[in-house]
Amino acid sequence: MEPHGTDDLDLDLHRARRTGEPEVVLAGPKTPEQAARAVRGLLDGTTGPVLATRCTPEHVDAILEAVPEAVVHHDAGVVVARAALSDPTLGLVVIATGGTSDLRVARECQVTLEAFGCKSDLITDVGVAGVHRVLGRRAQLDEADVVVAVAGMEGALPTVIGALVEAPVIAVPTSVGYGAAFGGLAALLGMLTSCAPGISVVNIDNGFGAALVARRILRARNRPAGDA
Amino acid sequence: MEPHGTDDLDLDLHRARRTGEPEVVLAGPKTPEQAARAVRGLLDGTTGPVLATRCTPEHVDAILEAVPEAVVHHDAGVVVARAALSDPTLGLVVIATGGTSDLRVARECQVTLEAFGCKSDLITDVGVAGVHRVLGRRAQLDEADVVVAVAGMEGALPTVIGALVEAPVIAVPTSVGYGAAFGGLAALLGMLTSCAPGISVVNIDNGFGAALVARRILRARNRPAGDA
Amino acid sequence: MEPHGTDDLDLDLHRARRTGEPEVVLAGPKTPEQAARAVRGLLDGTTGPVLATRCTPEHVDAILEAVPEAVVHHDAGVVVARAALSDPTLGLVVIATGGTSDLRVARECQVTLEAFGCKSDLITDVGVAGVHRVLGRRAQLDEADVVVAVAGMEGALPTVIGALVEAPVIAVPTSVGYGAAFGGLAALLGMLTSCAPGISVVNIDNGFGAALVARRILRARNRPAGDA
Amino acid sequence: MEPHGTDDLDLDLHRARRTGEPEVVLAGPKTPEQAARAVRGLLDGTTGPVLATRCTPEHVDAILEAVPEAVVHHDAGVVVARAALSDPTLGLVVIATGGTSDLRVARECQVTLEAFGCKSDLITDVGVAGVHRVLGRRAQLDEADVVVAVAGMEGALPTVIGALVEAPVIAVPTSVGYGAAFGGLAALLGMLTSCAPGISVVNIDNGFGAALVARRILRARNRPAGDA
Amino acid sequence: MEPHGTDDLDLDLHRARRTGEPEVVLAGPKTPEQAARAVRGLLDGTTGPVLATRCTPEHVDAILEAVPEAVVHHDAGVVVARAALSDPTLGLVVIATGGTSDLRVARECQVTLEAFGCKSDLITDVGVAGVHRVLGRRAQLDEADVVVAVAGMEGALPTVIGALVEAPVIAVPTSVGYGAAFGGLAALLGMLTSCAPGISVVNIDNGFGAALVARRILRARNRPAGDA
Amino acid sequence: MEPHGTDDLDLDLHRARRTGEPEVVLAGPKTPEQAARAVRGLLDGTTGPVLATRCTPEHVDAILEAVPEAVVHHDAGVVVARAALSDPTLGLVVIATGGTSDLRVARECQVTLEAFGCKSDLITDVGVAGVHRVLGRRAQLDEADVVVAVAGMEGALPTVIGALVEAPVIAVPTSVGYGAAFGGLAALLGMLTSCAPGISVVNIDNGFGAALVARRILRARNRPAGDA
Amino acid sequence: MEPHGTDDLDLDLHRARRTGEPEVVLAGPKTPEQAARAVRGLLDGTTGPVLATRCTPEHVDAILEAVPEAVVHHDAGVVVARAALSDPTLGLVVIATGGTSDLRVARECQVTLEAFGCKSDLITDVGVAGVHRVLGRRAQLDEADVVVAVAGMEGALPTVIGALVEAPVIAVPTSVGYGAAFGGLAALLGMLTSCAPGISVVNIDNGFGAALVARRILRARNRPAGDA
Amino acid sequence: MEPHGTDDLDLDLHRARRTGEPEVVLAGPKTPEQAARAVRGLLDGTTGPVLATRCTPEHVDAILEAVPEAVVHHDAGVVVARAALSDPTLGLVVIATGGTSDLRVARECQVTLEAFGCKSDLITDVGVAGVHRVLGRRAQLDEADVVVAVAGMEGALPTVIGALVEAPVIAVPTSVGYGAAFGGLAALLGMLTSCAPGISVVNIDNGFGAALVARRILRARNRPAGDA
Repeated sequence: MEPHGTDDLDLDLHRARRTGEPEVVLAGPKTPEQAARAVRGLLDGTTGPVLATRCTPEHVDAILEAVPEAVVHHDAGVVVARAALSDPTLGLVVIATGGTSDLRVARECQVTLEAFGCKSDLITDVGVAGVHRVLGRRAQLDEADVVVAVAGMEGALPTVIGALVEAPVIAVPTSVGYGAAFGGLAALLGMLTSCAPGISVVNIDNGFGAALVARRILRARNRPAGDA
Repeated sequence: MEPHGTDDLDLDLHRARRTGEPEVVLAGPKTPEQAARAVRGLLDGTTGPVLATRCTPEHVDAILEAVPEAVVHHDAGVVVARAALSDPTLGLVVIATGGTSDLRVARECQVTLEAFGCKSDLITDVGVAGVHRVLGRRAQLDEADVVVAVAGMEGALPTVIGALVEAPVIAVPTSVGYGAAFGGLAALLGMLTSCAPGISVVNIDNGFGAALVARRILRARNRPAGDA
Repeated sequence: MEPHGTDDLDLDLHRARRTGEPEVVLAGPKTPEQAARAVRGLLDGTTGPVLATRCTPEHVDAILEAVPEAVVHHDAGVVVARAALSDPTLGLVVIATGGTSDLRVARECQVTLEAFGCKSDLITDVGVAGVHRVLGRRAQLDEADVVVAVAGMEGALPTVIGALVEAPVIAVPTSVGYGAAFGGLAALLGMLTSCAPGISVVNIDNGFGAALVARRILRARNRPAGDA
Repeated sequence: MEPHGTDDLDLDLHRARRTGEPEVVLAGPKTPEQAARAVRGLLDGTTGPVLATRCTPEHVDAILEAVPEAVVHHDAGVVVARAALSDPTLGLVVIATGGTSDLRVARECQVTLEAFGCKSDLITDVGVAGVHRVLGRRAQLDEADVVVAVAGMEGALPTVIGALVEAPVIAVPTSVGYGAAFGGLAALLGMLTSCAPGISVVNIDNGFGAALVARRILRARNRPAGDA
Repeated sequence: MEPHGTDDLDLDLHRARRTGEPEVVLAGPKTPEQAARAVRGLLDGTTGPVLATRCTPEHVDAILEAVPEAVVHHDAGVVVARAALSDPTLGLVVIATGGTSDLRVARECQVTLEAFGCKSDLITDVGVAGVHRVLGRRAQLDEADVVVAVAGMEGALPTVIGALVEAPVIAVPTSVGYGAAFGGLAALLGMLTSCAPGISVVNIDNGFGAALVARRILRARNRPAGDA
Repeated sequence: MEPHGTDDLDLDLHRARRTGEPEVVLAGPKTPEQAARAVRGLLDGTTGPVLATRCTPEHVDAILEAVPEAVVHHDAGVVVARAALSDPTLGLVVIATGGTSDLRVARECQVTLEAFGCKSDLITDVGVAGVHRVLGRRAQLDEADVVVAVAGMEGALPTVIGALVEAPVIAVPTSVGYGAAFGGLAALLGMLTSCAPGISVVNIDNGFGAALVARRILRARNRPAGDA
Repeated sequence: MEPHGTDDLDLDLHRARRTGEPEVVLAGPKTPEQAARAVRGLLDGTTGPVLATRCTPEHVDAILEAVPEAVVHHDAGVVVARAALSDPTLGLVVIATGGTSDLRVARECQVTLEAFGCKSDLITDVGVAGVHRVLGRRAQLDEADVVVAVAGMEGALPTVIGALVEAPVIAVPTSVGYGAAFGGLAALLGMLTSCAPGISVVNIDNGFGAALVARRILRARNRPAGDA
Repeated sequence: MEPHGTDDLDLDLHRARRTGEPEVVLAGPKTPEQAARAVRGLLDGTTGPVLATRCTPEHVDAILEAVPEAVVHHDAGVVVARAALSDPTLGLVVIATGGTSDLRVARECQVTLEAFGCKSDLITDVGVAGVHRVLGRRAQLDEADVVVAVAGMEGALPTVIGALVEAPVIAVPTSVGYGAAFGGLAALLGMLTSCAPGISVVNIDNGFGAALVARRILRARNRPAGDA
């Protein structure tokens, strides 16, 4: 999603102006030093939010050395070097997860939203193996302007939610599961072929990407009417 | 499942004694003449139920010529040449389907069960995109000794049912769907990785196979206690 | 997406109230008679839009016999039995396609949006093999509240658009292409792993599904502020 | 299978009442602390069996610290915090395995059954490469009310057993094998396409899931006749 | 296997000398005219056996017009324009098949062997779903110098035979089966990962290829001892 | 291939009599202790060759402790506890490999053949990227009664050899290569679809399995003529 | 490759100036009318070569009606509406094919090159199953400035040629073959993992794409030295 | 690509004469000792460039011990034992990469070109998520005689470049990305199905292979005109 652009700052610092999103550092495939340098560079060269995702402890250490004031979210693997002010008028994202093992992905989504100033609620453990659990949260789900549904294994949670609520549902398959889960493939295919309406899908484990889609929807929601 | 044995009658007519199931003719990959000859042979050489599955109209015509008294179930693609007497004491199989397009598979299961003397109910159109539909049938599902859940696309129906009832659930993925459904693969993987308990899976579109598993469970249910 | 529910009208006619979407008839896997009966039933039993997608000429004939006033969109494979009034205040969906061969999917999306009262523009032939073409349409794309990007083969169009505009982008992979396109798999994987922000994906060739997601986003956009 | 629900005890403690199964902790994708907390919580909040599966040595240590009285089954990767009383009247499950390398999965099945009060026998090393071995165990297999057949590589064991016995056969593919075994895929596809009757399949390496299906079948077997 | 060389006769007529096999015409992907011309050319330009495989009725007609004396084997899809003299001293190939639907592939193998002068026996319908059937043919199988085992679906027949006999077993997966059989993939993977000794595998439905391997083994068997 | 049987010695010690092959210990998926116990048991309970394949250094240490006289072949990952006497009258196997990285698999084949008393030659580094290399070894290849061709990446070596020699060719795909080699899949598919005659295939990296097939062919070669 | 742009002529007629290639009409997924209109439009709006590929007889008829002077190449599925003048100074492309069944793809390549003014030779039937055939053409291959190697099944031809010549080799996998050829996948993977140097690969059956790459290489060859 | 030949020096030292490329040592699957011996052997036995690719630190240490004068390129994983003299008259290769994470593959390509005397420029961070970045480098790209485009995830960079420049484009998919990137499969399929002209593809992460293709194109460019 974001490995591009951080070495090419003169060009990419205008990016926020163009699409409304700043560059974000995907630490995962980078060395700690590369990641830290990219975060520092974005912090110095831009004025918007700056964060790094998929951070290992080594990434975290290197980034903290370069940017001591950064805030670390260990459960999300995210480091926030500069966050936007929270803007509750944008609307509400509700993030729902199937099980404990999906939490890291859900938290990556939530921390990213927060860094971008978006308000979100997190509903955990509403896997469809106990369908009453998700039904019991219907009032909370109905308040969402956007729902992000995070689930591994057979990935049926977005289907059930998509049929309950009116909001658009962003489905995030996770790599939780073994055997025929094939690293998230079962959940991915299930979500793509869902028989419920209003569901679109992002990459496996891509909580960050879901946050960006959710934020765009909230921004569309708040766009002056004359724009369209 | 059943292409084996019908040419080799001297050996295989003892099969019913061994596993309790007679041979069945899988017409699909056979010529109409091969299928008709096999049905006739089993009818003459055995005393149990005789049926042919996956019949095209050409198969039906050829079989009816060879066995004029056979009963044709067009919506199931099944021809029953001789059925067992219905034995309601065996217990009840409830077959649930997601949508209209899954009906042929569900009916293949039901007609097979009936030919073997097993009682079944068919609940249609309880796809999870409207989860209240399946919840609304809970009383009926609770009466089942075995549930057969038939669904295509993301195949989430067995998950929801598995979490509602106490009976074993046999999941039948169907090839209904397009694109990332990949001919039933999405439903198959979803059912195998279900987060609900008590679910086992048969081949894509294999309504017949599900009937055989269900019948074995009913027979286990009715086995004299001293056996175990 | 919609095979469920049309046989079970007493329950499902309340569906529009629940999620804001009426049931739609996916004609593809149904017989012409099943499809026509379902359309007739929905028309009589509901008050909202009624349409059938993936219609073959045989489906069209059967539906027209049952509902003579229906409007047929041959280039989209869609029959509209009753459309909502157009509501331009909802916002604008811009649908962009890579090539001529993707048009049927794009038109399925557009006709569905129209039947639901949503305004849309269609930009054709802006495949990335001539990236100046899509760049030349930037002003038009900037007007969109939601973009639907339809492309086969390597499916790079959503990536380029996602990096140009601020609106959420719904990516629709198509089965256009041969060999290593593997029936839309190449485009699907490409869209899921896009390096651009704000993209989510629906099933291969699922123009209808993209329309439902777009409509939910437009509705979120027009929701009273107090809701969240 | 079970990551859902353990953080949400107020709702899920009623689960046993609903489907007859308590929640079980799938330790694998959880941290040792998460797993230990979940086991402790279930032990305190429920009255039925409590166990954790897929435990690493680290999981075992953390659970034993939280629940010193727990019983550890190292060869199965299972920790039992509270077991049901054994109820031999339920019937007998016979678990058959192809080879030494399949033992861990078979033992996961057996320990789970035992924790739920179900009686089981384990027949090892009856791989079909020496078909006389499984034939030599026919008497023992005939005593089963349910057979669980565990095998890797080409996974042919359930086929041979399915054709020998009258009981339902639950097939468990294992990830044993290399190259074209593709992590259990060869065995999984083989079992799904078996030409023998009465076989249904659970996920690769899912000994626990097979135990839950077997237990439901035994319970169906013992259900009062008036129920159906 | 054999599309190469038939247009390039000046070079390839020496092929028989080099590897002991004449060129054979794979009619399948050729036009009837191309196939007929190739057969005629080989008949005129060589002195060994000449045959065409994978013939449709159109291929057969065109070849018969070009070579009226050719012998047609409809059940095998093979036309033999010139056969070698039968040489029973070469040894015996036993071909075993799982079911009726595998017969065309088995017959392609047998007719090819016969055209090359090799003796073979065909044992049909010994699918492992009735393992006593194949056990009952053990004496016949023991007479084989080479066994060709042809099976679709889960493809377990070579495993059982490989563990019974001393001869090398050539496994031929067939595309018989549906759903998770994936056009012969399940049988192919099963045969490649077989837990029985002495098995090697040819392409799906490749009865012709199995015959060539079997013939080479028979020839190795009859090679003068001084050669090695 | 061989995990079955080593725990069940009373039955399986008769195996050599039945198929001519003793059991072999596949150490890979076993603990060092399980492997050592199995080797010791076979050594004490049988009179034929005893070996263990896929041994790690830990397996080797454990086996040497249990059987100090065992011979270790580090480059093959094989430990031979008891070898058959060499019998050169059986014939000659020539093993050819594409590159240095395929050597371990080729040596597993060679050491196994040697332990079974079969004579073999090893030709290394005749990859088809320099086709003159394999052509330059034609005389040596022509002496073979059986050729084993070991190759990774695109796996074209068996094709070239199959078209050069008269002997049967056993193709062994290896997992050498990266990216689109997909762990040996490219080589496996290439070998199965080879356009050359006389080739059959074993599992990826299965040098041991190739040795068993080769040995059966040599034995068929030496079988008294009256047998057939 | 080329569905984009033909409806959008005002923009795309400048394309030839930009990359040196005119747009080409991929008839395959278009209706005959769409294809004919596109050819006519390009002919009238441009001055360079105009052709249509993947034409069915219906496409050919429609195009001939719109452009009576077009030249039809039935064996290539290509219609040339206007060809460039042949320019032999550009250099020579040698196209080599494995077998008769690959000819259509090879001819699509050759006719495209010819329409663009490039000189080419076609060498047929040099499949590696008779490696002497390709070796015998070495002098001819050495004259090539670019080699296009077209092959199905295991696709080993580019490997052998890549190791013989000094020119760049463009590998074209074809969908010729059955079973494990998986529609060209085996050849594609084999070519991508080739152990020979200087090979790059285009899509399955993409003779047209290979021609475009070859033409670019010839043009690079003839570029004034000062350019670099 | 290069594991073959280094053990067989007497034959392969003539290889440079035949195809113009010396053998190169693919260190990856070799032990450090094997790699070092091969480099030393090539250095002593040949007169052209000698290099080793895919070197781990252990490979580097072993090679430096054997060849102390070797030059190590850590960012490329390449050790150059002897380089050719730079020959700028050959032409220019421009290597373009999508993101920081693709750099190692791009550098493997560049260092290999340099060792072979070819001039190259490296353009980093021109991923299509900011399409203006690659457009901004058009002048630099236009100078290329060959472009190598390196990209992971959806791999759209070659498509955009192929439509901008006149030079042949060699596309290198990388394994950068997660989830549905499937280790480079998404990028590979995307590049193979690109809708832009003039693109051919090498294996995933194969920067070395791209360099060999590029060098052949440059050599074709500089070949005396009389050759063709």
